[in-house]
Amino acid sequence: MVDLDQVATLDLGREARRGYPEAVFCAGKSVDQLTAIAAEIGRVGQRTLFTRADPAQAAAVLAQLPDAHHDAEARLIAWPADPPAPSGGLIVVATAGTSDLPVAREALLTARHLGREAELVVDVGVAGLHRILAKLELLRRARVIVVVAGMDGALPSVVAGLVSAPVVAVPTSVGYGAAFEGLAALLTMLNACAPGVAVVNIDNGYGAGHLAAQIAAAVPAEPAATTRDPADG
Amino acid sequence: MVDLDQVATLDLGREARRGYPEAVFCAGKSVDQLTAIAAEIGRVGQRTLFTRADPAQAAAVLAQLPDAHHDAEARLIAWPADPPAPSGGLIVVATAGTSDLPVAREALLTARHLGREAELVVDVGVAGLHRILAKLELLRRARVIVVVAGMDGALPSVVAGLVSAPVVAVPTSVGYGAAFEGLAALLTMLNACAPGVAVVNIDNGYGAGHLAAQIAAAVPAEPAATTRDPADG
Amino acid sequence: MVDLDQVATLDLGREARRGYPEAVFCAGKSVDQLTAIAAEIGRVGQRTLFTRADPAQAAAVLAQLPDAHHDAEARLIAWPADPPAPSGGLIVVATAGTSDLPVAREALLTARHLGREAELVVDVGVAGLHRILAKLELLRRARVIVVVAGMDGALPSVVAGLVSAPVVAVPTSVGYGAAFEGLAALLTMLNACAPGVAVVNIDNGYGAGHLAAQIAAAVPAEPAATTRDPADG
Amino acid sequence: MVDLDQVATLDLGREARRGYPEAVFCAGKSVDQLTAIAAEIGRVGQRTLFTRADPAQAAAVLAQLPDAHHDAEARLIAWPADPPAPSGGLIVVATAGTSDLPVAREALLTARHLGREAELVVDVGVAGLHRILAKLELLRRARVIVVVAGMDGALPSVVAGLVSAPVVAVPTSVGYGAAFEGLAALLTMLNACAPGVAVVNIDNGYGAGHLAAQIAAAVPAEPAATTRDPADG
Amino acid sequence: MVDLDQVATLDLGREARRGYPEAVFCAGKSVDQLTAIAAEIGRVGQRTLFTRADPAQAAAVLAQLPDAHHDAEARLIAWPADPPAPSGGLIVVATAGTSDLPVAREALLTARHLGREAELVVDVGVAGLHRILAKLELLRRARVIVVVAGMDGALPSVVAGLVSAPVVAVPTSVGYGAAFEGLAALLTMLNACAPGVAVVNIDNGYGAGHLAAQIAAAVPAEPAATTRDPADG
Amino acid sequence: MVDLDQVATLDLGREARRGYPEAVFCAGKSVDQLTAIAAEIGRVGQRTLFTRADPAQAAAVLAQLPDAHHDAEARLIAWPADPPAPSGGLIVVATAGTSDLPVAREALLTARHLGREAELVVDVGVAGLHRILAKLELLRRARVIVVVAGMDGALPSVVAGLVSAPVVAVPTSVGYGAAFEGLAALLTMLNACAPGVAVVNIDNGYGAGHLAAQIAAAVPAEPAATTRDPADG
Amino acid sequence: MVDLDQVATLDLGREARRGYPEAVFCAGKSVDQLTAIAAEIGRVGQRTLFTRADPAQAAAVLAQLPDAHHDAEARLIAWPADPPAPSGGLIVVATAGTSDLPVAREALLTARHLGREAELVVDVGVAGLHRILAKLELLRRARVIVVVAGMDGALPSVVAGLVSAPVVAVPTSVGYGAAFEGLAALLTMLNACAPGVAVVNIDNGYGAGHLAAQIAAAVPAEPAATTRDPADG
Amino acid sequence: MVDLDQVATLDLGREARRGYPEAVFCAGKSVDQLTAIAAEIGRVGQRTLFTRADPAQAAAVLAQLPDAHHDAEARLIAWPADPPAPSGGLIVVATAGTSDLPVAREALLTARHLGREAELVVDVGVAGLHRILAKLELLRRARVIVVVAGMDGALPSVVAGLVSAPVVAVPTSVGYGAAFEGLAALLTMLNACAPGVAVVNIDNGYGAGHLAAQIAAAVPAEPAATTRDPADG
Repeated sequence: MVDLDQVATLDLGREARRGYPEAVFCAGKSVDQLTAIAAEIGRVGQRTLFTRADPAQAAAVLAQLPDAHHDAEARLIAWPADPPAPSGGLIVVATAGTSDLPVAREALLTARHLGREAELVVDVGVAGLHRILAKLELLRRARVIVVVAGMDGALPSVVAGLVSAPVVAVPTSVGYGAAFEGLAALLTMLNACAPGVAVVNIDNGYGAGHLAAQIAAAVPAEPAATTRDPADG
Repeated sequence: MVDLDQVATLDLGREARRGYPEAVFCAGKSVDQLTAIAAEIGRVGQRTLFTRADPAQAAAVLAQLPDAHHDAEARLIAWPADPPAPSGGLIVVATAGTSDLPVAREALLTARHLGREAELVVDVGVAGLHRILAKLELLRRARVIVVVAGMDGALPSVVAGLVSAPVVAVPTSVGYGAAFEGLAALLTMLNACAPGVAVVNIDNGYGAGHLAAQIAAAVPAEPAATTRDPADG
Repeated sequence: MVDLDQVATLDLGREARRGYPEAVFCAGKSVDQLTAIAAEIGRVGQRTLFTRADPAQAAAVLAQLPDAHHDAEARLIAWPADPPAPSGGLIVVATAGTSDLPVAREALLTARHLGREAELVVDVGVAGLHRILAKLELLRRARVIVVVAGMDGALPSVVAGLVSAPVVAVPTSVGYGAAFEGLAALLTMLNACAPGVAVVNIDNGYGAGHLAAQIAAAVPAEPAATTRDPADG
Repeated sequence: MVDLDQVATLDLGREARRGYPEAVFCAGKSVDQLTAIAAEIGRVGQRTLFTRADPAQAAAVLAQLPDAHHDAEARLIAWPADPPAPSGGLIVVATAGTSDLPVAREALLTARHLGREAELVVDVGVAGLHRILAKLELLRRARVIVVVAGMDGALPSVVAGLVSAPVVAVPTSVGYGAAFEGLAALLTMLNACAPGVAVVNIDNGYGAGHLAAQIAAAVPAEPAATTRDPADG
Repeated sequence: MVDLDQVATLDLGREARRGYPEAVFCAGKSVDQLTAIAAEIGRVGQRTLFTRADPAQAAAVLAQLPDAHHDAEARLIAWPADPPAPSGGLIVVATAGTSDLPVAREALLTARHLGREAELVVDVGVAGLHRILAKLELLRRARVIVVVAGMDGALPSVVAGLVSAPVVAVPTSVGYGAAFEGLAALLTMLNACAPGVAVVNIDNGYGAGHLAAQIAAAVPAEPAATTRDPADG
Repeated sequence: MVDLDQVATLDLGREARRGYPEAVFCAGKSVDQLTAIAAEIGRVGQRTLFTRADPAQAAAVLAQLPDAHHDAEARLIAWPADPPAPSGGLIVVATAGTSDLPVAREALLTARHLGREAELVVDVGVAGLHRILAKLELLRRARVIVVVAGMDGALPSVVAGLVSAPVVAVPTSVGYGAAFEGLAALLTMLNACAPGVAVVNIDNGYGAGHLAAQIAAAVPAEPAATTRDPADG
Repeated sequence: MVDLDQVATLDLGREARRGYPEAVFCAGKSVDQLTAIAAEIGRVGQRTLFTRADPAQAAAVLAQLPDAHHDAEARLIAWPADPPAPSGGLIVVATAGTSDLPVAREALLTARHLGREAELVVDVGVAGLHRILAKLELLRRARVIVVVAGMDGALPSVVAGLVSAPVVAVPTSVGYGAAFEGLAALLTMLNACAPGVAVVNIDNGYGAGHLAAQIAAAVPAEPAATTRDPADG
Repeated sequence: MVDLDQVATLDLGREARRGYPEAVFCAGKSVDQLTAIAAEIGRVGQRTLFTRADPAQAAAVLAQLPDAHHDAEARLIAWPADPPAPSGGLIVVATAGTSDLPVAREALLTARHLGREAELVVDVGVAGLHRILAKLELLRRARVIVVVAGMDGALPSVVAGLVSAPVVAVPTSVGYGAAFEGLAALLTMLNACAPGVAVVNIDNGYGAGHLAAQIAAAVPAEPAATTRDPADG
């Protein structure tokens, strides 16, 4: 097994400092590296999400943390498997199309594992406007709405114009040609003509779920009273 | 006065060949060049639009064609001043915001001077969705709808999803930052999740009005029976 | 089988609202998702096109709709297999090169399945100008011309300058290097020096065929007199 | 005076529907158009912000609404002049440099006029890390932190890693060369290695202040019980 | 006067080494710097072109070299004023539109001052194809054709497909929106579907004229038998 | 076998019209299409180059034209196999690095099959300047020099500054990161500080060889006295 | 006068922490802000450079620090006016052209005011290679060479290939068209085929001079033994 | 075996001229080409690094140079296997994340094989600021620090602000979406708000290690007194 010190510096103080658990970005990490990291996490017993895990990476993590929950579509592994009891406001995750589902599920599960209640609404893009209008009552109950859309990325503008809650907009790489792997949707969202749209990176379901969980927190999670973080001086 | 042969090759056969009159793109042309061109157009008596004319350029054209119609906001000069009697279907030009008006008026006037009935709907962007929904009856009477929008450029997708007519989408350079001078709106429109969206260049009100006039023609304008066009062989 | 409600919100009112049938964009959808969608479409008996279907996706759709028509080159599945009787004006689809054929066929078949007569002209790019000039008579009979071109994307400008009908320009990703996956052709078409060019997304044969069908409609397809569309208020 | 119906469709139902007042984006609007809009707003007595007002535009608005508050650095006009009594959590607005101040002030004033308590921290960029670390206690009291930065745009990543509250990141066009008018900072923020960063458009202080106000709302502003919004069906 | 050694290292060996005279790129040089450079050129009596000279820069050069030829439209100053007697093949310079004339004239004059016969053809863009076809006989007499075009930049592809001579393609910044200051035309030309197209920088009339002069040289200009160029070893 | 009329319009008049033979761009063509095209070329006996042929495509062509010459590294097939007797001036093809060889060989072979003498110089990039300086005598004997370079693309500027002949610059996709698949080298070459650089598309060895052959022609190839080309009028 | 605390947080510990003095980036700062900053700097007596000062900004600074040195071409103000006695190795600053001089002088003066000996070599671009080769002896005496170039940006590759010292490459915005305001030169330098090239931002003469001073330091400047920097923990 | 003269011009004078050994960039070279190159290097006994070698390329090199050192993660082969005895100052290589390790190791090993002492610090990105602050003492002992980071690329700005040594910043392609294969990190680093940051190409660990070795040289490596380099004149 590789020596953990040679490959990673786990941020074990993160939950204390920020109020939310560590996450391990699996893309670009070798199976050996993930094995060492997962073993250490199991050893210290720290709540952790593993994101963007391909099948081989997921297998390596699950070998060390066999009781973790793995959602293959979302490429997410949560350990421990059960999310904490929900607190704070409701999060609604809505997708423009079916192809946006993997990213939407990553957001949904992240929000739940960070302690929020979260619901999913699927395939309500603006080409058939009645679909999102039919969900207005649910949308207006949410403390924050995550809107996931590729291609023209127009749905967040429309949703933000209908509600008082903030919208977290996630552009996806769904589309082709001048969608430029999600760039078109990203620019649309950054230029939303309705205020109240918070944009995250293309396909960044994890970041959207995390941000939504922070926004919907009943009161902001307090960092632990005592912390070893040297940055605190 | 400059020698016309040294600066331009007027396409006097265009109306015969294409069914629509010549247009002179003023940007980048000197006052002397426009004077020579306008004088020749007056001499041969050919219906012409002058587009993107700044005040000095407009003055030069009007000096030669004093009975022309000049719309300063649209930067357009039409000669003769009166449009032909309308034929074909109705064209509706809709804007997302007030700042899109110069481009929208260029489209509106072009369509009228090419022989179509055209109506204007202003400031009905998706941030307040009820505004465009309130115009549905008018939109559904149109043979083609020109939608002019900057920033997120989301309005054409929404309109196209509500009607059977084709939509001509005109991105504008309205916005700032990641609007990138209209690029964001352009990409949005090219990726419209509703089919039936025809995109033209950023701020190209003239092109949109021309295209709409062709689409709404009762029957396509026939080229004249006899033509000197050497390309016809 | 996956639960359809969890993966898609079919727009069954689209033909009533817009006058043209639903289309299912297959890219990014799983075989399980497409199976559920195709089964539902078969159940409700709604005319549908499936676009951008790779072989595995096509097999899943055909398993549910065995009497559908599948064109592998165009990656298109039409159900029912036979297009409706044609109405409206003639559509001509012209390609600059042989490599543009898959996109051109997608446009051609879409136009036919949306109820138009459509003809194909192949490999008439501007490097040998006599090839397109030899087709002038056919081009001038069309109500709308779809021009499909990669690389320099110059053909739509040339065609638009020769006819009175509008041109739907489809840039393709054919080319290499500074073609930038179709961006060069896209920009060329957006800047066509001849007016009357309607641009759609790179490789978007479906969108081009749909737009052409709308333009060539005898009279615009009327939405059904009674509709359940909640957006109509 | 221009006819208001010809230039704008005011969204008078916005405060009822969304819980926050209307805003008028002044860029691209003529003095005549702004005069008509401001007069109407004064007539109906609706709380409004005017954003991105250059001096001539500001003068036109103030001529109609002489008791409005004008902040020239932020290019913002608020009417009525006094913000509502603050509710909800604290917003801290922090800038990386002095040149980011106009955008930061636009965010600060927007948040206050939307009913939040907001404080400003200036010139605490990462080149001298001790400056932001010295503000940790204040930052940790905030319900949401707006971080305004140009050039490398690195400050939001650093701040987000130190607190539990969400960070609204505003890239600015401060910089030169490969800053590409704010694009570099925008990309940095979209790729923040710390989760919890909500990105808005380049130089979009208004949007950041609005989003922060929504996040820091005690409970989400409720839309009025009865509303005329046709989109509600 | 500034010390020449502090601002420039004139390449007095260039005509000996390359067979073509020195050129001074004026953009970005101060009037003082150009004064020093022009004075030195007059002193050593070396044939020189000054390119991209704005009026103040031109005045500074002409003050030192009063018998030079200045073409304001082309922003070019040639000293001595008279071109050498022409040798080699014919160069034809053709423009797509009137607005391309400044760049075309820069190419035309450069070619003449480098010793070639050169003729100008104006405003023969592809929107009216008969215009370029009417010039076929002249084009086929040329040893090389310089084609200057903005917007869609389609003319070089068409010309190259009609002749055996090479085409030097010069994209111009004529256009707007998605012309992206000449980028669209540049990409079109780089992707010309007809081989035989040599592309130079946007608006680079000087470079095009120089390249054409080299191509049309009767035999390549020989470097002087003896040369002091240290690079020759 | 597919029907040739359905997939291609061979330009059999090209050699008569342009003086150089037809070329078939294989990328994007199916094996069936290439089989039909190659069979027709064999039937009419027209000299042809097949470019960018992958192994399966090459096999299909060779099955129809078994006596053709295939250079796998250059992905080029020439039929007939032997180039014509050389005429005109010498062409030198120089590469910056070893990885540029496939593109360089495509240029070299194209030039030879179009009737020119051509020599290859390998791996003489500017990082070791003595390598190109050692070849000065050969370079100065050339009528035109093709310079093939990736990464920084600096070699054409250096070569053009040393000789009187024109330089055809071919950027390659060799490199990584900010080479952006050849974009960096392309921009370098378009901005060459030495005049006399003709740029072609990234990796376009064929186009470079063709252009060089035209430049080095003893006298331009004359189109046949009688031609059926309808474009001639 | 504005309150300094409201506009800036001076990094008075920077010289202690980093060994090099504070610099004030003037672009985007108001005259009032610069007045307050300059006054404070004069009060605490801290060595400071003011960069990118336009004439009005320079006047404001000089009003507070009348004994400062102002170089208008470099837009730089140094206070105190005299650089410290030089230590460390020699820095050579070389420019490709005359138009690169403002950036080169900013680098030269920065290096001198940070305590290094620095010499300037002007207009030695690769179009006339003998010019840089004539300076080889000087270049080889340098501890580090700053190479300033626009357009093709090829000079750093050539220089780096000739010496053992590192090269700091500064792309400039000199050029036009596809130079894209320095992007072309920037990419060239990032892809330099010779190793040993350190790239800084476009037109960043200050950064280049600072970096060169650090590289040429005899031994790295030591931070003061005692420091109040809270980041040190 | 291929003829070496046909594929490469080894720069055997490089160590004499520049003071650092030759490197062979393996990407894009065939196994046959690498075999010929490695054989020649073994024959002349010249110290060489092979960079970016995939497994098949590495095997080919090792077959000729079986006693070489191969680091698969860094894709680097060093021959001879042992680095020279270290001289000069300490180099510290720090990574923001675990996924940056392959690039970091390429830099580390390059620096060592060029004769420097080098240490590695892993996974100290700014999301957990205490991690880099914990390494301050080591960082301040370094003569130069190589910082390797993807995603937001913020670490070099932070490090440069804490030390007096120059920082070599290496953007990596780690990330997704708007990371644009390392472009985001590259732009961040070019715009670092702290001076003293030297940027190299994306993923260019070799270049970073080489540059760092030059900076940390005790005194610059002297070229051999006598050299055959013709560029020296």
